[in-house]
Amino acid sequence: MKIGFIGLGIMGTPMALHLVNAGHQLLVNTLGPLPDSIVASTALACANAAEVTRGADVVFIMVPDTPDVEAVLFGDMGVASGLQAGAGERRKIVVDMSSISPIATKTFAQRINALGADYLDAPVSGGEVGARAASLTIMCGGSEAAFETVRPLLEKMGQNITLVGGNGDGQTTKVANQIIVALTIAAVAEALLFASKAGADPAKVRQALMGGFASSRILEVHGERMIKRTFAPGFRIRLHQKDLNLALQGARELGVALPQTANAAQLMQACAANGMADLDHSALLRALELMAAHELA
Amino acid sequence: MKIGFIGLGIMGTPMALHLVNAGHQLLVNTLGPLPDSIVASTALACANAAEVTRGADVVFIMVPDTPDVEAVLFGDMGVASGLQAGAGERRKIVVDMSSISPIATKTFAQRINALGADYLDAPVSGGEVGARAASLTIMCGGSEAAFETVRPLLEKMGQNITLVGGNGDGQTTKVANQIIVALTIAAVAEALLFASKAGADPAKVRQALMGGFASSRILEVHGERMIKRTFAPGFRIRLHQKDLNLALQGARELGVALPQTANAAQLMQACAANGMADLDHSALLRALELMAAHELA
Repeated sequence: MKIGFIGLGIMGTPMALHLVNAGHQLLVNTLGPLPDSIVASTALACANAAEVTRGADVVFIMVPDTPDVEAVLFGDMGVASGLQAGAGERRKIVVDMSSISPIATKTFAQRINALGADYLDAPVSGGEVGARAASLTIMCGGSEAAFETVRPLLEKMGQNITLVGGNGDGQTTKVANQIIVALTIAAVAEALLFASKAGADPAKVRQALMGGFASSRILEVHGERMIKRTFAPGFRIRLHQKDLNLALQGARELGVALPQTANAAQLMQACAANGMADLDHSALLRALELMAAHELA
Repeated sequence: MKIGFIGLGIMGTPMALHLVNAGHQLLVNTLGPLPDSIVASTALACANAAEVTRGADVVFIMVPDTPDVEAVLFGDMGVASGLQAGAGERRKIVVDMSSISPIATKTFAQRINALGADYLDAPVSGGEVGARAASLTIMCGGSEAAFETVRPLLEKMGQNITLVGGNGDGQTTKVANQIIVALTIAAVAEALLFASKAGADPAKVRQALMGGFASSRILEVHGERMIKRTFAPGFRIRLHQKDLNLALQGARELGVALPQTANAAQLMQACAANGMADLDHSALLRALELMAAHELA
Protein backbone atom coordinates (compact mmCIF):
# COMPACT_ATOMS: atom_id res chain seq x y z
CA MET A 1 0.00 0.00 0.00
CA LYS A 2 1.45 3.35 -1.05
CA ILE A 3 1.03 6.16 1.40
CA GLY A 4 0.88 9.91 0.91
CA PHE A 5 1.61 12.41 3.67
CA ILE A 6 0.82 16.11 3.28
CA GLY A 7 1.96 18.57 5.94
CA LEU A 8 5.35 17.96 7.56
CA GLY A 9 5.33 20.32 10.50
CA ILE A 10 6.06 19.71 14.18
CA MET A 11 3.39 17.00 14.34
CA GLY A 12 3.43 15.66 10.78
CA THR A 13 7.16 15.02 10.54
CA PRO A 14 7.49 12.49 13.40
CA MET A 15 4.18 10.89 12.40
CA ALA A 16 5.35 10.43 8.80
CA LEU A 17 8.69 9.05 9.97
CA HIS A 18 6.92 6.35 12.02
CA LEU A 19 5.31 5.18 8.76
CA VAL A 20 8.65 5.29 6.93
CA ASN A 21 10.30 3.34 9.76
CA ALA A 22 7.55 0.73 9.54
CA GLY A 23 8.76 0.08 5.96
CA HIS A 24 6.19 2.03 3.98
CA GLN A 25 6.94 3.94 0.78
CA LEU A 26 5.87 7.52 1.40
CA LEU A 27 5.01 10.27 -1.08
CA VAL A 28 5.25 13.60 0.68
CA ASN A 29 4.45 17.25 0.19
CA THR A 30 4.55 20.23 2.51
CA LEU A 31 4.56 24.02 2.44
CA GLY A 32 8.16 25.24 2.31
CA PRO A 33 11.26 23.05 2.31
CA LEU A 34 11.19 19.41 3.46
CA PRO A 35 12.61 18.78 6.95
CA ASP A 36 16.11 17.25 6.92
CA SER A 37 14.89 14.07 8.62
CA ILE A 38 12.43 13.51 5.77
CA VAL A 39 15.06 14.27 3.09
CA ALA A 40 17.36 11.73 4.74
CA SER A 41 14.60 9.07 4.65
CA THR A 42 13.19 6.94 1.85
CA ALA A 43 10.23 9.31 1.41
CA LEU A 44 9.75 10.72 -2.12
CA ALA A 45 9.03 14.42 -2.54
CA CYS A 46 6.10 15.38 -4.77
CA ALA A 47 5.47 18.78 -6.35
CA ASN A 48 1.96 19.13 -4.94
CA ALA A 49 -0.96 17.38 -3.19
CA ALA A 50 -2.43 16.20 -6.51
CA GLU A 51 0.76 14.31 -7.36
CA VAL A 52 0.83 12.73 -3.87
CA THR A 53 -2.78 11.63 -4.29
CA ARG A 54 -2.30 10.16 -7.76
CA GLY A 55 0.48 7.91 -6.50
CA ALA A 56 -0.96 6.87 -3.13
CA ASP A 57 -3.71 4.57 -1.85
CA VAL A 58 -4.03 6.41 1.46
CA VAL A 59 -3.34 10.13 1.82
CA PHE A 60 -2.73 11.59 5.29
CA ILE A 61 -3.14 15.32 5.91
CA MET A 62 -1.68 17.11 8.95
CA VAL A 63 -1.99 20.89 8.64
CA PRO A 64 -2.92 23.67 11.11
CA ASP A 65 -6.54 24.71 10.54
CA THR A 66 -9.78 24.40 8.56
CA PRO A 67 -8.75 26.73 5.67
CA ASP A 68 -5.45 24.85 5.33
CA VAL A 69 -7.26 21.52 4.96
CA GLU A 70 -9.66 23.09 2.46
CA ALA A 71 -6.71 24.39 0.41
CA VAL A 72 -4.94 20.99 0.46
CA LEU A 73 -8.14 19.20 -0.58
CA PHE A 74 -9.75 21.55 -3.08
CA GLY A 75 -7.12 24.19 -3.93
CA ASP A 76 -5.09 24.36 -7.13
CA MET A 77 -3.39 20.98 -7.71
CA GLY A 78 -4.97 19.71 -4.53
CA VAL A 79 -6.10 16.25 -3.44
CA ALA A 80 -9.35 16.54 -5.42
CA SER A 81 -7.41 17.14 -8.66
CA GLY A 82 -5.36 14.02 -7.96
CA LEU A 83 -8.50 11.96 -7.33
CA GLN A 84 -10.08 13.09 -10.58
CA ALA A 85 -6.92 12.24 -12.50
CA GLY A 86 -6.70 8.81 -10.91
CA ALA A 87 -10.31 7.72 -11.45
CA GLY A 88 -10.91 4.03 -12.06
CA GLU A 89 -8.11 2.72 -9.85
CA ARG A 90 -8.38 1.20 -6.36
CA ARG A 91 -10.64 3.32 -4.09
CA LYS A 92 -8.43 5.79 -2.26
CA ILE A 93 -8.80 6.97 1.34
CA VAL A 94 -8.16 10.53 2.47
CA VAL A 95 -7.33 10.75 6.20
CA ASP A 96 -7.38 14.22 7.73
CA MET A 97 -5.50 14.15 11.05
CA SER A 98 -5.59 17.94 11.50
CA SER A 99 -7.85 19.42 14.20
CA ILE A 100 -10.50 21.40 12.33
CA SER A 101 -14.20 22.26 12.23
CA PRO A 102 -16.49 19.20 12.57
CA ILE A 103 -19.11 20.98 10.46
CA ALA A 104 -16.73 21.80 7.60
CA THR A 105 -15.41 18.23 7.84
CA LYS A 106 -18.82 16.80 6.95
CA THR A 107 -18.89 18.91 3.79
CA PHE A 108 -15.31 18.03 2.89
CA ALA A 109 -16.12 14.33 3.30
CA GLN A 110 -19.16 14.57 1.04
CA ARG A 111 -17.16 16.34 -1.66
CA ILE A 112 -14.37 13.74 -1.47
CA ASN A 113 -16.90 10.88 -1.53
CA ALA A 114 -18.45 12.42 -4.64
CA LEU A 115 -15.05 12.02 -6.31
CA GLY A 116 -15.07 8.26 -5.59
CA ALA A 117 -12.81 8.22 -2.52
CA ASP A 118 -13.33 7.51 1.19
CA TYR A 119 -12.76 10.12 3.87
CA LEU A 120 -11.73 9.64 7.47
CA ASP A 121 -11.39 12.44 10.01
CA ALA A 122 -8.79 11.35 12.54
CA PRO A 123 -7.62 14.22 14.75
CA VAL A 124 -5.17 13.46 17.51
CA SER A 125 -4.37 14.52 21.03
CA GLY A 126 -1.05 14.12 22.78
CA GLY A 127 0.92 16.91 21.12
CA GLU A 128 4.49 16.84 19.89
CA VAL A 129 5.55 14.47 22.67
CA GLY A 130 2.82 12.00 21.71
CA ALA A 131 3.67 12.33 18.02
CA ARG A 132 7.35 11.51 18.66
CA ALA A 133 6.52 8.64 21.02
CA ALA A 134 3.81 7.25 18.70
CA SER A 135 1.45 7.44 21.66
CA LEU A 136 -1.19 9.78 20.22
CA THR A 137 -4.87 9.36 21.02
CA ILE A 138 -6.69 9.24 17.66
CA MET A 139 -10.43 9.98 17.40
CA CYS A 140 -11.94 8.85 14.10
CA GLY A 141 -15.06 9.54 12.09
CA GLY A 142 -15.95 7.69 8.88
CA SER A 143 -16.95 4.29 7.55
CA GLU A 144 -15.93 1.15 9.37
CA ALA A 145 -14.38 -0.25 6.19
CA ALA A 146 -12.13 2.79 5.68
CA PHE A 147 -11.24 2.78 9.38
CA GLU A 148 -10.25 -0.89 9.34
CA THR A 149 -8.11 -0.41 6.22
CA VAL A 150 -6.25 2.52 7.77
CA ARG A 151 -6.09 1.25 11.36
CA PRO A 152 -2.75 -0.60 11.03
CA LEU A 153 -1.21 2.67 9.80
CA LEU A 154 -2.77 4.69 12.64
CA GLU A 155 -1.35 2.15 15.07
CA LYS A 156 2.15 3.18 13.96
CA MET A 157 1.35 6.72 15.17
CA GLY A 158 -0.87 6.26 18.21
CA GLN A 159 -2.16 3.96 20.91
CA ASN A 160 -5.72 4.83 21.88
CA ILE A 161 -7.54 4.69 18.53
CA THR A 162 -11.35 4.85 18.40
CA LEU A 163 -13.92 5.00 15.61
CA VAL A 164 -16.53 7.24 17.23
CA GLY A 165 -19.02 7.40 14.36
CA GLY A 166 -19.53 8.85 10.90
CA ASN A 167 -17.60 11.68 9.25
CA GLY A 168 -17.19 14.69 11.52
CA ASP A 169 -17.57 12.65 14.73
CA GLY A 170 -13.79 12.36 15.10
CA GLN A 171 -13.43 16.14 14.96
CA THR A 172 -16.43 16.56 17.28
CA THR A 173 -14.76 14.27 19.82
CA LYS A 174 -11.54 16.26 19.58
CA VAL A 175 -13.46 19.48 20.25
CA ALA A 176 -15.21 17.82 23.22
CA ASN A 177 -11.80 16.75 24.51
CA GLN A 178 -10.42 20.28 24.27
CA ILE A 179 -13.49 21.72 26.02
CA ILE A 180 -13.08 19.32 28.94
CA VAL A 181 -9.33 19.85 29.20
CA ALA A 182 -9.60 23.66 29.18
CA LEU A 183 -12.45 23.73 31.70
CA THR A 184 -10.79 21.23 34.02
CA ILE A 185 -7.60 23.32 33.95
CA ALA A 186 -9.72 26.33 34.94
CA ALA A 187 -11.38 24.26 37.69
CA VAL A 188 -8.06 23.21 39.19
CA ALA A 189 -6.64 26.74 38.84
CA GLU A 190 -9.58 28.39 40.64
CA ALA A 191 -9.57 25.76 43.40
CA LEU A 192 -5.83 25.92 44.08
CA LEU A 193 -5.72 29.73 43.93
CA PHE A 194 -8.64 29.96 46.37
CA ALA A 195 -6.90 27.51 48.69
CA SER A 196 -3.62 29.40 48.51
CA LYS A 197 -5.24 32.78 49.21
CA ALA A 198 -7.09 31.20 52.15
CA GLY A 199 -3.70 30.28 53.58
CA ALA A 200 -3.56 26.55 52.79
CA ASP A 201 -0.63 24.85 51.05
CA PRO A 202 -1.86 24.15 47.49
CA ALA A 203 0.43 21.12 47.19
CA LYS A 204 -1.20 19.54 50.26
CA VAL A 205 -4.68 20.46 49.03
CA ARG A 206 -3.95 18.82 45.67
CA GLN A 207 -2.67 15.72 47.48
CA ALA A 208 -5.77 15.54 49.68
CA LEU A 209 -8.06 15.79 46.63
CA MET A 210 -6.30 13.14 44.54
CA GLY A 211 -8.11 9.84 44.66
CA GLY A 212 -11.38 11.55 45.63
CA PHE A 213 -14.24 12.79 43.50
CA ALA A 214 -12.26 15.82 42.29
CA SER A 215 -9.52 13.64 40.84
CA SER A 216 -8.56 13.91 37.19
CA ARG A 217 -5.54 13.63 34.93
CA ILE A 218 -5.55 17.44 34.84
CA LEU A 219 -5.39 17.74 38.66
CA GLU A 220 -2.52 15.28 38.57
CA VAL A 221 -0.47 16.74 35.71
CA HIS A 222 -1.49 20.39 35.43
CA GLY A 223 -2.10 20.81 39.16
CA GLU A 224 1.54 19.89 39.64
CA ARG A 225 2.61 22.26 36.83
CA MET A 226 0.74 25.12 38.55
CA ILE A 227 2.30 24.40 41.95
CA LYS A 228 5.82 24.03 40.52
CA ARG A 229 5.20 26.87 38.03
CA THR A 230 6.55 24.83 35.11
CA PHE A 231 4.74 26.67 32.33
CA ALA A 232 7.08 25.74 29.48
CA PRO A 233 4.95 23.95 26.84
CA GLY A 234 3.54 21.27 26.71
CA PHE A 235 0.49 22.42 24.81
CA ARG A 236 0.56 26.12 24.02
CA ILE A 237 -2.21 28.51 25.01
CA ARG A 238 -2.14 29.76 21.40
CA LEU A 239 -3.17 26.31 20.14
CA HIS A 240 -5.82 25.77 22.78
CA GLN A 241 -7.28 29.16 21.83
CA LYS A 242 -7.66 27.86 18.27
CA ASP A 243 -9.43 24.74 19.54
CA LEU A 244 -11.80 26.67 21.83
CA ASN A 245 -12.56 28.89 18.86
CA LEU A 246 -13.61 25.74 16.94
CA ALA A 247 -15.88 24.89 19.89
CA LEU A 248 -17.45 28.35 20.15
CA GLN A 249 -17.79 28.87 16.40
CA GLY A 250 -19.27 25.38 16.09
CA ALA A 251 -21.63 26.01 19.01
CA ARG A 252 -22.85 29.18 17.34
CA GLU A 253 -23.49 27.38 14.04
CA LEU A 254 -25.17 24.44 15.79
CA GLY A 255 -27.26 26.44 18.24
CA VAL A 256 -25.71 25.48 21.59
CA ALA A 257 -24.60 27.84 24.36
CA LEU A 258 -21.26 27.03 26.03
CA PRO A 259 -20.94 29.66 28.77
CA GLN A 260 -18.06 28.01 30.64
CA THR A 261 -16.10 27.42 27.44
CA ALA A 262 -16.63 31.03 26.38
CA ASN A 263 -15.35 32.27 29.71
CA ALA A 264 -12.34 29.93 29.70
CA ALA A 265 -11.50 31.19 26.21
CA GLN A 266 -11.48 34.71 27.63
CA LEU A 267 -9.11 33.64 30.42
CA MET A 268 -6.75 32.24 27.78
CA GLN A 269 -7.21 35.49 25.87
CA ALA A 270 -6.13 37.36 29.00
CA CYS A 271 -2.99 35.22 29.10
CA ALA A 272 -2.29 35.96 25.44
CA ALA A 273 -2.88 39.67 26.08
CA ASN A 274 -0.16 39.49 28.73
CA GLY A 275 2.40 37.88 26.45
CA MET A 276 1.77 34.29 27.54
CA ALA A 277 0.34 32.76 24.34
CA ASP A 278 3.32 30.43 24.03
CA LEU A 279 3.20 29.15 27.60
CA ASP A 280 1.61 25.82 28.46
CA HIS A 281 -2.19 25.95 28.81
CA SER A 282 -1.87 25.30 32.55
CA ALA A 283 -0.70 28.95 32.67
CA LEU A 284 -4.40 29.84 32.48
CA LEU A 285 -3.81 30.09 36.25
CA ARG A 286 -1.79 33.26 35.53
CA ALA A 287 -4.91 35.09 34.31
CA LEU A 288 -6.59 34.37 37.67
CA GLU A 289 -3.43 35.37 39.53
CA LEU A 290 -3.34 38.70 37.70
CA MET A 291 -6.99 39.32 38.65
CA ALA A 292 -6.33 38.45 42.31
CA ALA A 293 -2.93 40.17 42.62
CA HIS A 294 -1.87 36.92 44.29
CA GLU A 295 0.35 34.05 43.18
CA LEU A 296 -0.07 30.42 44.14
CA ALA A 297 2.24 30.19 47.15
CA MET B 1 -12.59 8.07 75.85
CA LYS B 2 -16.09 9.53 76.03
CA ILE B 3 -17.45 10.93 72.81
CA GLY B 4 -20.03 13.61 72.15
CA PHE B 5 -21.96 13.92 68.87
CA ILE B 6 -24.06 16.99 68.07
CA GLY B 7 -26.23 16.98 64.94
CA LEU B 8 -27.97 13.73 64.02
CA GLY B 9 -29.26 14.42 60.53
CA ILE B 10 -28.88 12.42 57.31
CA MET B 11 -25.09 12.51 57.64
CA GLY B 12 -24.62 12.65 61.42
CA THR B 13 -26.81 9.67 62.27
CA PRO B 14 -24.91 6.98 60.36
CA MET B 15 -21.58 8.57 61.36
CA ALA B 16 -22.52 8.50 65.05
CA LEU B 17 -23.75 4.92 64.76
CA HIS B 18 -20.35 3.81 63.39
CA LEU B 19 -18.81 5.13 66.63
CA VAL B 20 -21.47 3.39 68.75
CA ASN B 21 -20.89 0.15 66.84
CA ALA B 22 -17.16 0.45 67.50
CA GLY B 23 -18.00 0.23 71.22
CA HIS B 24 -17.83 3.89 72.22
CA GLN B 25 -20.11 5.51 74.79
CA LEU B 26 -21.78 8.42 72.99
CA LEU B 27 -23.43 11.52 74.44
CA VAL B 28 -25.71 13.01 71.80
CA ASN B 29 -27.79 16.05 71.11
CA THR B 30 -29.65 17.24 68.02
CA LEU B 31 -32.34 19.69 66.95
CA GLY B 32 -35.75 17.99 67.17
CA PRO B 33 -36.38 14.39 68.21
CA LEU B 34 -33.61 11.77 68.19
CA PRO B 35 -33.70 9.31 65.24
CA ASP B 36 -35.08 5.89 66.17
CA SER B 37 -31.79 4.18 65.33
CA ILE B 38 -30.03 6.39 67.89
CA VAL B 39 -32.73 5.84 70.53
CA ALA B 40 -32.35 2.08 70.03
CA SER B 41 -28.57 2.33 70.54
CA THR B 42 -26.44 2.75 73.68
CA ALA B 43 -26.10 6.50 73.02
CA LEU B 44 -27.18 8.78 75.87
CA ALA B 45 -29.36 11.80 75.10
CA CYS B 46 -28.25 15.14 76.55
CA ALA B 47 -30.40 18.25 76.99
CA ASN B 48 -28.02 20.53 75.10
CA ALA B 49 -24.54 20.95 73.60
CA ALA B 50 -23.09 22.19 76.90
CA GLU B 51 -24.11 18.95 78.65
CA VAL B 52 -22.61 16.88 75.83
CA THR B 53 -19.37 18.84 76.11
CA ARG B 54 -19.12 18.56 79.91
CA GLY B 55 -19.31 14.78 79.71
CA ALA B 56 -17.15 14.12 76.65
CA ASP B 57 -13.44 14.17 75.78
CA VAL B 58 -14.08 14.64 72.06
CA VAL B 59 -17.15 16.46 70.70
CA PHE B 60 -18.15 15.96 67.05
CA ILE B 61 -20.40 18.48 65.31
CA MET B 62 -22.28 17.72 62.08
CA VAL B 63 -24.78 20.47 61.22
CA PRO B 64 -25.76 22.19 57.96
CA ASP B 65 -24.05 25.59 57.73
CA THR B 66 -21.81 28.25 59.31
CA PRO B 67 -24.54 29.88 61.49
CA ASP B 68 -25.57 26.44 62.77
CA VAL B 69 -22.00 25.67 63.88
CA GLU B 70 -21.75 29.11 65.48
CA ALA B 71 -24.99 28.47 67.40
CA VAL B 72 -23.83 25.03 68.57
CA LEU B 73 -20.46 26.42 69.69
CA PHE B 74 -21.32 29.80 71.16
CA GLY B 75 -25.11 29.90 71.53
CA ASP B 76 -27.06 29.51 74.76
CA MET B 77 -25.95 26.28 76.52
CA GLY B 78 -23.55 25.66 73.66
CA VAL B 79 -20.18 23.90 73.53
CA ALA B 80 -18.39 26.97 74.90
CA SER B 81 -20.57 26.94 78.05
CA GLY B 82 -19.73 23.27 78.54
CA LEU B 83 -16.00 23.96 78.17
CA GLN B 84 -16.11 26.77 80.74
CA ALA B 85 -17.98 24.55 83.21
CA GLY B 86 -15.50 21.71 82.76
CA ALA B 87 -12.27 23.72 83.13
CA GLY B 88 -9.32 21.95 84.75
CA GLU B 89 -10.09 18.44 83.41
CA ARG B 90 -8.40 16.62 80.51
CA ARG B 91 -8.01 18.91 77.45
CA LYS B 92 -11.06 18.41 75.24
CA ILE B 93 -11.16 18.39 71.42
CA VAL B 94 -13.98 19.92 69.37
CA VAL B 95 -14.23 18.38 65.88
CA ASP B 96 -16.44 20.21 63.38
CA MET B 97 -17.28 17.89 60.48
CA SER B 98 -19.84 20.27 58.94
CA SER B 99 -18.96 22.03 55.65
CA ILE B 100 -18.73 25.71 56.52
CA SER B 101 -16.75 28.91 55.91
CA PRO B 102 -12.96 28.43 56.21
CA ILE B 103 -12.65 32.03 57.36
CA ALA B 104 -15.26 31.75 60.11
CA THR B 105 -13.63 28.44 61.11
CA LYS B 106 -10.35 30.17 61.94
CA THR B 107 -12.19 32.52 64.32
CA PHE B 108 -14.20 29.68 65.87
CA ALA B 109 -10.98 27.73 66.48
CA GLN B 110 -9.29 30.70 68.18
CA ARG B 111 -12.29 31.23 70.46
CA ILE B 112 -12.39 27.52 71.39
CA ASN B 113 -8.62 27.48 71.97
CA ALA B 114 -9.01 30.49 74.28
CA LEU B 115 -11.31 28.31 76.40
CA GLY B 116 -8.57 25.70 76.81
CA ALA B 117 -9.73 23.17 74.21
CA ASP B 118 -8.40 21.98 70.83
CA TYR B 119 -10.31 22.48 67.60
CA LEU B 120 -10.22 20.39 64.46
CA ASP B 121 -12.11 21.22 61.26
CA ALA B 122 -12.82 17.94 59.49
CA PRO B 123 -15.39 18.33 56.71
CA VAL B 124 -16.22 15.30 54.61
CA SER B 125 -17.07 14.40 51.06
CA GLY B 126 -18.90 11.29 49.93
CA GLY B 127 -22.45 12.20 50.92
CA GLU B 128 -25.04 9.99 52.56
CA VAL B 129 -23.75 6.91 50.75
CA GLY B 130 -20.24 7.52 52.04
CA ALA B 131 -21.54 8.21 55.55
CA ARG B 132 -23.43 4.91 55.62
CA ALA B 133 -20.54 2.94 54.13
CA ALA B 134 -17.97 4.63 56.42
CA SER B 135 -16.08 5.55 53.25
CA LEU B 136 -16.07 9.33 53.63
CA THR B 137 -13.10 11.43 52.52
CA ILE B 138 -12.18 13.61 55.53
CA MET B 139 -10.11 16.80 55.09
CA CYS B 140 -8.67 18.09 58.37
CA GLY B 141 -7.23 21.33 59.69
CA GLY B 142 -5.73 21.68 63.17
CA SER B 143 -2.80 20.59 65.32
CA GLU B 144 -1.07 17.30 64.62
CA ALA B 145 -1.58 16.23 68.25
CA ALA B 146 -5.35 16.76 68.12
CA PHE B 147 -5.49 15.05 64.72
CA GLU B 148 -3.60 11.98 65.95
CA THR B 149 -5.84 11.70 69.02
CA VAL B 150 -9.01 11.83 66.93
CA ARG B 151 -7.77 9.85 63.93
CA PRO B 152 -8.85 6.40 65.22
CA LEU B 153 -12.39 7.78 65.59
CA LEU B 154 -12.35 9.37 62.11
CA GLU B 155 -11.23 6.01 60.74
CA LYS B 156 -14.55 4.54 61.91
CA MET B 157 -16.35 7.04 59.64
CA GLY B 158 -14.08 7.43 56.60
CA GLN B 159 -11.22 6.03 54.56
CA ASN B 160 -9.22 8.83 52.96
CA ILE B 161 -8.27 11.01 55.95
CA THR B 162 -5.74 13.83 55.54
CA LEU B 163 -4.39 16.54 57.84
CA VAL B 164 -3.95 19.35 55.30
CA GLY B 165 -2.68 22.06 57.67
CA GLY B 166 -3.78 24.36 60.46
CA ASN B 167 -7.34 25.32 61.43
CA GLY B 168 -9.44 26.32 58.43
CA ASP B 169 -7.33 24.32 55.95
CA GLY B 170 -9.73 21.37 56.15
CA GLN B 171 -12.67 23.61 55.22
CA THR B 172 -10.57 25.30 52.53
CA THR B 173 -9.80 21.90 51.00
CA LYS B 174 -13.49 21.00 51.04
CA VAL B 175 -14.33 24.24 49.21
CA ALA B 176 -11.57 23.52 46.67
CA ASN B 177 -13.05 20.05 46.18
CA GLN B 178 -16.52 21.45 45.54
CA ILE B 179 -15.16 24.03 43.08
CA ILE B 180 -13.40 21.34 41.07
CA VAL B 181 -16.36 18.97 41.14
CA ALA B 182 -18.85 21.64 40.01
CA LEU B 183 -16.59 22.95 37.25
CA THR B 184 -15.72 19.48 35.98
CA ILE B 185 -19.42 18.61 35.84
CA ALA B 186 -19.93 21.77 33.75
CA ALA B 187 -16.98 20.78 31.55
CA VAL B 188 -18.38 17.32 30.83
CA ALA B 189 -21.89 18.74 30.32
CA GLU B 190 -20.77 21.34 27.76
CA ALA B 191 -18.59 18.82 25.92
CA LEU B 192 -21.24 16.10 25.68
CA LEU B 193 -24.01 18.55 24.73
CA PHE B 194 -21.83 20.03 22.00
CA ALA B 195 -21.04 16.54 20.72
CA SER B 196 -24.68 15.52 20.75
CA LYS B 197 -25.83 18.63 18.89
CA ALA B 198 -23.06 18.05 16.35
CA GLY B 199 -24.60 14.64 15.67
CA ALA B 200 -22.19 12.37 17.54
CA ASP B 201 -23.26 9.71 20.05
CA PRO B 202 -22.35 11.17 23.48
CA ALA B 203 -21.86 7.68 24.93
CA LYS B 204 -19.24 6.91 22.27
CA VAL B 205 -17.59 10.30 22.74
CA ARG B 206 -17.37 9.71 26.50
CA GLN B 207 -15.88 6.27 25.85
CA ALA B 208 -13.29 7.68 23.43
CA LEU B 209 -12.24 10.34 25.96
CA MET B 210 -11.88 8.00 28.96
CA GLY B 211 -8.28 7.10 29.58
CA GLY B 212 -7.06 10.21 27.73
CA PHE B 213 -6.19 13.65 29.03
CA ALA B 214 -9.86 14.57 29.53
CA SER B 215 -10.43 11.66 31.89
CA SER B 216 -11.74 12.24 35.41
CA ARG B 217 -13.96 10.59 38.00
CA ILE B 218 -16.63 13.11 36.96
CA LEU B 219 -16.48 12.07 33.28
CA GLU B 220 -16.77 8.48 34.43
CA VAL B 221 -19.60 8.81 36.98
CA HIS B 222 -21.48 11.98 36.05
CA GLY B 223 -20.87 11.59 32.32
CA GLU B 224 -22.73 8.30 32.58
CA ARG B 225 -25.50 9.91 34.67
CA MET B 226 -25.97 12.58 31.98
CA ILE B 227 -26.13 10.03 29.17
CA LYS B 228 -28.53 7.73 31.06
CA ARG B 229 -30.39 10.74 32.53
CA THR B 230 -30.26 9.33 36.06
CA PHE B 231 -30.63 12.60 37.92
CA ALA B 232 -31.99 11.19 41.20
CA PRO B 233 -29.57 12.28 43.94
CA GLY B 234 -26.74 11.57 44.69
CA PHE B 235 -25.60 15.00 45.75
CA ARG B 236 -28.35 17.61 45.44
CA ILE B 237 -27.96 20.82 43.45
CA ARG B 238 -29.34 22.64 46.53
CA LEU B 239 -26.36 21.48 48.60
CA HIS B 240 -23.80 22.21 45.93
CA GLN B 241 -25.27 25.73 45.65
CA LYS B 242 -24.54 26.18 49.36
CA ASP B 243 -20.93 25.03 48.85
CA LEU B 244 -20.36 27.29 45.83
CA ASN B 245 -21.74 30.13 47.90
CA LEU B 246 -19.04 29.37 50.50
CA ALA B 247 -16.48 29.55 47.66
CA LEU B 248 -17.78 32.83 46.23
CA GLN B 249 -18.36 34.50 49.60
CA GLY B 250 -14.91 33.35 50.72
CA ALA B 251 -13.35 34.57 47.47
CA ARG B 252 -14.92 37.97 47.99
CA GLU B 253 -13.62 38.23 51.56
CA LEU B 254 -10.17 36.97 50.55
CA GLY B 255 -9.80 39.03 47.38
CA VAL B 256 -9.79 36.34 44.66
CA ALA B 257 -11.88 36.28 41.49
CA LEU B 258 -13.44 32.93 40.55
CA PRO B 259 -15.17 33.61 37.22
CA GLN B 260 -15.78 29.97 36.29
CA THR B 261 -17.15 29.14 39.74
CA ALA B 262 -19.45 32.17 39.64
CA ASN B 263 -20.79 31.11 36.27
CA ALA B 264 -21.27 27.48 37.34
CA ALA B 265 -23.19 28.72 40.39
CA GLN B 266 -25.49 30.59 38.00
CA LEU B 267 -26.05 27.41 35.96
CA MET B 268 -27.05 25.60 39.17
CA GLN B 269 -29.25 28.60 39.99
CA ALA B 270 -30.94 28.16 36.60
CA CYS B 271 -31.63 24.52 37.52
CA ALA B 272 -33.10 25.59 40.86
CA ALA B 273 -35.22 28.22 39.11
CA ASN B 274 -36.66 25.42 36.98
CA GLY B 275 -37.62 23.23 39.93
CA MET B 276 -34.50 21.04 39.87
CA ALA B 277 -32.83 21.99 43.16
CA ASP B 278 -33.31 18.47 44.51
CA LEU B 279 -31.89 16.68 41.49
CA ASP B 280 -28.33 15.37 41.46
CA HIS B 281 -25.71 18.03 40.61
CA SER B 282 -25.02 16.28 37.29
CA ALA B 283 -28.38 17.81 36.25
CA LEU B 284 -26.42 21.04 35.71
CA LEU B 285 -26.56 19.68 32.14
CA ARG B 286 -30.28 20.53 32.15
CA ALA B 287 -29.53 24.26 32.38
CA LEU B 288 -27.44 23.99 29.20
CA GLU B 289 -30.13 21.89 27.53
CA LEU B 290 -32.75 24.52 28.32
CA MET B 291 -30.53 27.20 26.77
CA ALA B 292 -29.92 25.12 23.65
CA ALA B 293 -33.46 23.76 23.27
CA HIS B 294 -31.72 20.41 22.77
CA GLU B 295 -31.40 17.32 24.93
CA LEU B 296 -28.44 14.96 25.03
CA ALA B 297 -29.48 12.29 22.53
